[in-house]
Amino acid sequence: MMESVTVGASKKYEVIIGSGILRDCGELISRVKAPCLACIVTDDIVDGLYADTVEESLRSAGFSVVKHVFPNGEQSKCLECYGRLLDVLSAEGVTRTDLIVALGGGVCGDMAGFAAATYLRGMDYVQIPTTFLAAIDSSVGGKTAIDISAGKNLVGAFHQPIEVICDTDTLSTLRPETFADGAAEAIKYGVLSDPEIFDIFSEGRIREELQHVIKRSVEIKSEYVEKDEFDTGLRMYLNLGHTPGHAMEKLSHFSVTHGHAVATGMVMVADISEKLGFCEAGTAERIRQVLLKNQLPISTSFGAAELGEAALTDKKRRGASIRLILPVRIGECMLYETDAEKLPELFAMSEAVEG
Amino acid sequence: MMESVTVGASKKYEVIIGSGILRDCGELISRVKAPCLACIVTDDIVDGLYADTVEESLRSAGFSVVKHVFPNGEQSKCLECYGRLLDVLSAEGVTRTDLIVALGGGVCGDMAGFAAATYLRGMDYVQIPTTFLAAIDSSVGGKTAIDISAGKNLVGAFHQPIEVICDTDTLSTLRPETFADGAAEAIKYGVLSDPEIFDIFSEGRIREELQHVIKRSVEIKSEYVEKDEFDTGLRMYLNLGHTPGHAMEKLSHFSVTHGHAVATGMVMVADISEKLGFCEAGTAERIRQVLLKNQLPISTSFGAAELGEAALTDKKRRGASIRLILPVRIGECMLYETDAEKLPELFAMSEAVEG
Repeated sequence: MMESVTVGASKKYEVIIGSGILRDCGELISRVKAPCLACIVTDDIVDGLYADTVEESLRSAGFSVVKHVFPNGEQSKCLECYGRLLDVLSAEGVTRTDLIVALGGGVCGDMAGFAAATYLRGMDYVQIPTTFLAAIDSSVGGKTAIDISAGKNLVGAFHQPIEVICDTDTLSTLRPETFADGAAEAIKYGVLSDPEIFDIFSEGRIREELQHVIKRSVEIKSEYVEKDEFDTGLRMYLNLGHTPGHAMEKLSHFSVTHGHAVATGMVMVADISEKLGFCEAGTAERIRQVLLKNQLPISTSFGAAELGEAALTDKKRRGASIRLILPVRIGECMLYETDAEKLPELFAMSEAVEG
Repeated sequence: MMESVTVGASKKYEVIIGSGILRDCGELISRVKAPCLACIVTDDIVDGLYADTVEESLRSAGFSVVKHVFPNGEQSKCLECYGRLLDVLSAEGVTRTDLIVALGGGVCGDMAGFAAATYLRGMDYVQIPTTFLAAIDSSVGGKTAIDISAGKNLVGAFHQPIEVICDTDTLSTLRPETFADGAAEAIKYGVLSDPEIFDIFSEGRIREELQHVIKRSVEIKSEYVEKDEFDTGLRMYLNLGHTPGHAMEKLSHFSVTHGHAVATGMVMVADISEKLGFCEAGTAERIRQVLLKNQLPISTSFGAAELGEAALTDKKRRGASIRLILPVRIGECMLYETDAEKLPELFAMSEAVEG
């Protein structure tokens, strides 16, 4: 059964979730956009799996279709690939009343979304996430971005899609590590505000409950985004586990994936929260168990000092304080503001880091 | 005497106009932005003329200052130059609470503005236009852009500056042709809605009345922009003379400048409007005289057929109709919607084109 969540930022749109709905995407899109020229943007792996289905469905619904395929991988989220996409859009005569269809994971959604935000100063786009992580994370919030040599996501725009179509069947083709990346973010939503999601992962029922977990994750994220569209306050709760997580990604030169880094990051902040006396005893252990059960790591080989240093580099200029999101219990977190210089010391409180 | 116009789009900001105010820019900026790191973006000609004054003034007001200089000319408004600017911003540790200061003409404002719109998903910028055209055109409306190989301004964003500082003294160093480019746009505002501006140019009083004309032009443009921030309707009145003008620019591979093309474009639409019976007799002749008096062209060597074809290329996909802005008298225009295919025939009504 197909379900949908209305995400209400400056423009409202539906995130539609269901099994096998890829073949109906043309009809679903035509509910919010009159047939026009649709440019499918996808990578060379997803292209072979799903592009034909999407193209056929779009054509059946009356859309004209062109397609741009880029090489799979984070290295494609760059200025050059973005430039190539822009050249294709104008060579194909795409106008600002036409449509971009981003078919793929986070890299695809971020780059195609940024092109949609800026080509002719903004046009509509639809996201069709094909990874668990993209379905629950980048599909909500309207953050689009590309990387530059100095770092990831340093250039981008806020631009909401007009619709998100998530076919849960596409997630079944994911490699286990890629699926686990999405699981880490979904578990994060559980720790943040939904003990039921947490229990589903604890009890190993995620494959059966996938659609429900995606729906709840999207609902939770959209609640935060609605209240803070431009990421100036409340939305920082979504960064649970991300401050140490980003430091791990950076120190590993991104060989540690986002979800895996966030998993260990959650263990760290739970340990810290228990040590500081903010958190129900046993919470960190419960988080460890749920991560292990879902093929996610609970420790890192980096040390507290280097992690603290890496986390600080980004933040130093913003002033002397840093904000961490700390669990209080499963389903509730708090904001903890402290002196930025204390970060290595706080990280050292966790058993997840190297002595 | 310094004057200012409040431009009220989604965010309100002041356009401050006066003689010699460049040396006070730091103080003027500090009224709307607490001292932070300011990155001056300018070209290698303007750099030698005004960057030291701006830098000194910013430092006196408490700002830290870094500077990025790019080669003068439209060819710098490209993805590569934009990428270099982004790299500089991150190498200098610019954060999203810092400031970009765009010091220069339209190329500088458009590119630095697009960087401000997208670096870290958006940061503040101030425009200090140093050409007449930039002062009255690109400084109002929040349109930022870069060019790609397929065409000018095809990529960009709507992003309002937090302040615009226009020192009329900087316009005195302009070459006559460059000054005339601004004059053409200002005369356009006269034809559109202000007979007094038109008279100032007719009577050769622009040098004495420069500040007043800039102020009125900014007021007129901002009235249209306020009512139509995202350029979906009313703002098209600002395109008076631009449909044939853009065609001339394109056919000449941009050796005909924007202002010069708009000048001839205004003559064309005035001729058309008289022939169609919409326009007070003698209006086209008055427009010819004012343009000649201000070193602007009143005819083109391109033919009606090729101009019509060039104008159509952009619009064809949008459907079968095209909208032209036609003068009714000096100070009043109307919207004329017609079959796009009729454009060459309409253009042929004007004596400004080659038979």
